[in-house]
This record gives sequence, C-alpha cells and structure tokens, in this order.
Amino acid sequence: MEESRPLDALNEARNKSVMVDLKNGFRYTGKLKAFDIHINTVLDNAEEYKDGELKRKIGTVFIRGDMITIISPQ
Amino acid sequence: MEESRPLDALNEARNKSVMVDLKNGFRYTGKLKAFDIHINTVLDNAEEYKDGELKRKIGTVFIRGDMITIISPQ
Amino acid sequence: MEESRPLDALNEARNKSVMVDLKNGFRYTGKLKAFDIHINTVLDNAEEYKDGELKRKIGTVFIRGDMITIISPQ
Amino acid sequence: MEESRPLDALNEARNKSVMVDLKNGFRYTGKLKAFDIHINTVLDNAEEYKDGELKRKIGTVFIRGDMITIISPQ
Amino acid sequence: MEESRPLDALNEARNKSVMVDLKNGFRYTGKLKAFDIHINTVLDNAEEYKDGELKRKIGTVFIRGDMITIISPQ
Amino acid sequence: MEESRPLDALNEARNKSVMVDLKNGFRYTGKLKAFDIHINTVLDNAEEYKDGELKRKIGTVFIRGDMITIISPQ
Amino acid sequence: MEESRPLDALNEARNKSVMVDLKNGFRYTGKLKAFDIHINTVLDNAEEYKDGELKRKIGTVFIRGDMITIISPQ
Repeated sequence: MEESRPLDALNEARNKSVMVDLKNGFRYTGKLKAFDIHINTVLDNAEEYKDGELKRKIGTVFIRGDMITIISPQ
Repeated sequence: MEESRPLDALNEARNKSVMVDLKNGFRYTGKLKAFDIHINTVLDNAEEYKDGELKRKIGTVFIRGDMITIISPQ
Repeated sequence: MEESRPLDALNEARNKSVMVDLKNGFRYTGKLKAFDIHINTVLDNAEEYKDGELKRKIGTVFIRGDMITIISPQ
Repeated sequence: MEESRPLDALNEARNKSVMVDLKNGFRYTGKLKAFDIHINTVLDNAEEYKDGELKRKIGTVFIRGDMITIISPQ
Repeated sequence: MEESRPLDALNEARNKSVMVDLKNGFRYTGKLKAFDIHINTVLDNAEEYKDGELKRKIGTVFIRGDMITIISPQ
Repeated sequence: MEESRPLDALNEARNKSVMVDLKNGFRYTGKLKAFDIHINTVLDNAEEYKDGELKRKIGTVFIRGDMITIISPQ
Repeated sequence: MEESRPLDALNEARNKSVMVDLKNGFRYTGKLKAFDIHINTVLDNAEEYKDGELKRKIGTVFIRGDMITIISPQ
C-alpha cells in the first residue's frame, strides 16, 4: 500500500468546501479551486470570518500560503 | 480537464481592480499591474487604507510579497 | 547500528494517534495520515483544543508544517 | 504584449524619488540608487521618518529587503 | 587538528540526556534519539516543562527544529 | 552606464564608519570590516547603543544579517 | 589585499571566549568550539545570563543560528 502525502488530502478536497484558518485569526471558507506546494490557495465563493463572525463575502480570494495554519474540508 | 494553479487566479485579475491585505493591517486597492512567484505585487492607481479608512492615494506601489495575506479581485 | 533520523519517529506513528501542538497555542489530536519533509501534516478524526478545552471535531485536517512546535504519539 | 514584472516598476523608479515603508514603522525617502531580487535597496539623500515626523537626514542608506513592506515612487 | 562542527556536539549527545529550550518558553528533557540538519529533534522518555515546572511526561516527542533555541547535554 | 547593486554601496563603506540598526532596537557603530550576501556584518571598534544611549564598547562584533534593518555610512 | 568575510572573524575567535546574544534576550558566554554557515554555534564552559544576571552554568551548549543577534569576542 502506497503511503499518502499531505497534498493528497488537499487534492481530494478540490472543488469542495473547505475552511482555511490564518495566522492573523481570520478564517476563510469557500470552494477550493487551487493550491500549490507553498500552500498558496485560491477559494471561490469565499466568505471571511473574524472571531466567528461573517465580515464579508469576497468571491474569489488568493491566500498566501505562509499565512495558513490549517485547511479542513467541511 | 487541467487543474488550475493559484497564480492562474492572479493572472486573470491582471489589469483589473484588486484588494490586497497586508500582515500589518494595511489594505491597498488598485489595478493589478504585475506579480511574481514570491507574490511581489505592483498596483497602479493605488489607495492605502488602515482600519477601513482611506489614508492616501499613492499612484504606483510595489508591495513585497511576504507582507501579503490575501489578494482578491473586486 | 544505523542512526535513526527524526522523520523515522513520525513514520512509526503513521496511522496511530498523535498530538500536534501549534505555535498559536492550538492543539490537534487525531490519527496521523500523512506528513512530508516540511512537516506538513494530515490528521484524521481530528479534534481541536485551545487551553486544554475541546473546541470542535473537524474530521480531516491539513496542518501547515511551519506552524508546528511538537508532535507526540499518544 | 509582454507582461510586466514587479521589478520593472522598481527599474522605472531608479534615480527617482521613492518612499520606502518598513515593517518596524520607519519610512525612508530618497533617490533610488540600487535594488536586487531580495529587494535589498539603497537610497541616496535619504531621510528617516517615524510617525510622520522627520527623525534625521542620513545620506546613503542600505535597507535590508526583508524589512520592506512597500516602495512607492513619489 | 580538524575543526569541529556544531552537529558534532549533537552527535556526541546521541542517546544521552539533553535539555531542549524552545522559542515559546517550553523546555523538553529526555534522551536524544535523532536530529537532522534542520535541527528537527526526537527525544525519548521526554518531560515537558514550563516556567521550571513539570507539565507532563510525554514519552517520545518530535520537536520541529525552527522552534529550538538551545540544546544542552545534561 | 552600468547599474549599481545594493552591495556596491556596502563595498564603498568598507573600512569606513557605519551605523547598523537592528530589529530589536539596538544600534551598532564601528568600522565596517566585512559583510556577505546574507548581510552578516563585522564591525571593528564597535559601540552598542539602545534608545540613543551608549551601552558598551565591544571591540569586534559579528552581527547576524537577518537582524539588520539598515546600514548607513556615517 | 584580500577582503575579509564575516565568518573569518568567527574563525579567529575559535577556542576563545565569546559572548553570544539571542533574540529572546538571553546571553551565553563560553569558549567558541564550533559554528557553521547558519551560525549554529557551540560553546564550552557556557554560562547563561538574562537581564545581566547569571542564571546557570551549562557546560556545553548548542545554539541554533537563527536565534543569534550578535557574537563578540571578549
């Protein structure tokens, strides 16, 4: 059995809803459109949350990978 | 179908209005003129915001990529 | 006798329960599914803790390696 | 039409007045003499500002690139 | 006489008791099982301390190298 | 005319008095003896300042490049 | 005359007493046994200081290079 790698988990989440938490306390939810080895990430239909509160809907968002703490399918 | 990469989303935003949020809480809006793999970014007709308030209009601005948290087309 | 390397310890923990502590004070527990040389890590059946308190159950979680302080088998 | 790159904008500002903002809140203005791919930057006839107040005139200054948030032609 | 390198000191401490201090104020003691060029480190029979107080015994622990400030044989 | 690079400015300052500001608020003055591409820097006849006050004279000092914000000839 | 490089200054300090200041405010003194290009450093007969006060004698200590601000021969 081949061992799985971390990016496999992101690949399985492609085009599905994910939650992305950032180092500055912001959370973005949306459909995972793209990511790369730096974990730079693009979400569609994105919503921005701070302290659990919806701040705004922002359509497409590019998130710089080094800001990300976790990504979780919803 | 070919899978999209994060920089594709920035390429589609070229010459369009974008919003760039920085780690220090500043936000810059303007027309996306250029970016590279470090996410170093150049905006034209740029405006600088802090805490939602317009601080100044600064024409062209080069933003160092490692300061950026998100980039979003407007 | 061959000397062991740090990633050997993670390999032995694969598919077992681990505890992952983050720089922002969050702790994640779950089954270690995957990791890479950056210590990007994927847990299954994950639970998120802050200050010793269970915050939520989040299924699968991808943790960016540079956020991790320690990983410990439970 | 060839797409522009971020360092092109700095090249056009060479020998012109620029404003450089740093992560520690300092601002330097002066004539842009040199920069490299790390965004290490040299200004001539430089002035140092903190909180909008001129602190000193410092002639030539070498600024380490990783301290820079933005560079803007004036 | 050949000049010694920093990792030689860690090699001599292999399978011996060491103290590892982290950037977040935590200290781990235990038997040094493994380390690599990033200073990723594995301890056996590890104990976790904060502010000089034993917080817990955690068996095997993988410590991400970039969290480490010093390692000292005991 | 050849374009100048940032390290040219440091080369011209070699064996001359410079002021080096650090991210932690310390300032070192002295004669610039050496530097490398990481901006690791060595000063001779160095003096250490904090908040504008001379703290001590320290002869030769090696400053790690990633701590440096600016270097300025005096 | 050949230009000196920063690591030359550390090489001259080998087996001599040095003072090493860290980003977290700790200072270590001792005999410089080893260093590498990352400025990972090993001291013998080391003493640990905080706020100018001797905290403990720790024999041999490995200091991770990215924690170091300055190294100065004593």
